[in-house]
Amino acid sequence: MIYSPDELARINDNPLYRTIGIEVLSCGEGNAVSVMAPRPEVCWPSAGQPHGGILFTQIDTTTAFAALSTAEAGSGCATVDSGIQYAAPARHGPFRCEATTLRRTGRTVFVRAEILDARNELIALCQATFRILSRD
Amino acid sequence: MIYSPDELARINDNPLYRTIGIEVLSCGEGNAVSVMAPRPEVCWPSAGQPHGGILFTQIDTTTAFAALSTAEAGSGCATVDSGIQYAAPARHGPFRCEATTLRRTGRTVFVRAEILDARNELIALCQATFRILSRD
Amino acid sequence: MIYSPDELARINDNPLYRTIGIEVLSCGEGNAVSVMAPRPEVCWPSAGQPHGGILFTQIDTTTAFAALSTAEAGSGCATVDSGIQYAAPARHGPFRCEATTLRRTGRTVFVRAEILDARNELIALCQATFRILSRD
Amino acid sequence: MIYSPDELARINDNPLYRTIGIEVLSCGEGNAVSVMAPRPEVCWPSAGQPHGGILFTQIDTTTAFAALSTAEAGSGCATVDSGIQYAAPARHGPFRCEATTLRRTGRTVFVRAEILDARNELIALCQATFRILSRD
Repeated sequence: MIYSPDELARINDNPLYRTIGIEVLSCGEGNAVSVMAPRPEVCWPSAGQPHGGILFTQIDTTTAFAALSTAEAGSGCATVDSGIQYAAPARHGPFRCEATTLRRTGRTVFVRAEILDARNELIALCQATFRILSRD
Repeated sequence: MIYSPDELARINDNPLYRTIGIEVLSCGEGNAVSVMAPRPEVCWPSAGQPHGGILFTQIDTTTAFAALSTAEAGSGCATVDSGIQYAAPARHGPFRCEATTLRRTGRTVFVRAEILDARNELIALCQATFRILSRD
Repeated sequence: MIYSPDELARINDNPLYRTIGIEVLSCGEGNAVSVMAPRPEVCWPSAGQPHGGILFTQIDTTTAFAALSTAEAGSGCATVDSGIQYAAPARHGPFRCEATTLRRTGRTVFVRAEILDARNELIALCQATFRILSRD
Repeated sequence: MIYSPDELARINDNPLYRTIGIEVLSCGEGNAVSVMAPRPEVCWPSAGQPHGGILFTQIDTTTAFAALSTAEAGSGCATVDSGIQYAAPARHGPFRCEATTLRRTGRTVFVRAEILDARNELIALCQATFRILSRD
């Protein structure tokens, strides 16, 4: 499925994204893209740099939507595991996260993602496993 | 080194922890313990449950302090990579994170951590690598 | 379930273990222990040191048996993901691997393991996810 | 650096590769490709399918050469951590592994790799961190 602009607007209207500064730009057919302009509150201990956990949060939510877009409408998904590598300091936002589903086997979805900074430098890379859940 | 109550108070007085609801309870000699009473803003998409990225943020900051406490005062540390597994839904806070350094080889530190909920159930487990940085 | 000496003998009588030099010592109720006396053929590029992939193979098979011992007899299991950290060079064999199931949620099993050398030094540590499969 | 056919022949002439059935096809400028025609001894517990640890060994050695090719001649490298996901059963060999360096920051190298089967299906994917070592 591909998320419509209305669905994306509805997704983006949530307290977590507002607190951090995340917006999902597109989502569909196993892929998702988000951008993060981190709010000052989540830039600690280095001013202007989002905490590593905040970078991970951007990756986790973007990979989850990529995984979810492989499922029928109304499904949910849960992260089983996720591994992140921090390739460089996150000094120059905003940060763009691109997530790609590499394979779905049954209800298990394998997704990769990268975060690039405003200069197109690779900041973080991730590999994650999700389980698709029915919402019965 | 072991962090004194004054040092812990100074660490805990930061905007990220206030935004999420994290407090480091103890830190020293390779170990650290934190507690998280997640604020409603970071409990999304399921009300009352912190986002997976927020759980990771608690783990990342707690493992970082565990690693840092193996170094001389004034050092910094950077997460190289971190892997998290989500063992169960995070329904019953507050959440306690315990981080333990298993080995330090040169400037590379290997740390593990677990998050337990208020019923003492295992919610998440982590394995991470840090690099100790001099602050010259 | 707990594997009997006869079952362990049957498991250990396989070409992979003979080629590498692995023996499972015990397996039951979510835990497993193995020992590896690596054959010279798998010690490369450093003579006397098993390749990192061979250390991982010991961990993967030991964690798999730990996971499998949480299931009814006749089940199978598949590794979904596994993360290994290499904490120190593997110079002093034989190597002992201890694997522990931390949680089983439905058919998903979360397992950790460590490899210690003959001097009881930590060489490698692992965190893995398995799926239990019915053999219908 | 780019490995010459002579250097590749010298690398491939080792007991580990012969025992498993691995050959490095190319290596240079951060990338490496290998092929594995697994010997029957390492195909266990399922006949015809290499053990998960054997697939990991192909990935670990291929990613290590990719990382090493970013360094000056005579350097060594050590795996710090590596995470593998098993996306599908490894039924149809030979297996091709392609490894790509995404970033090198100081002596730390971040590499990804995939294993494809003879039908071009994705079997396994990996993300690993290496440290470049001087051989002084």
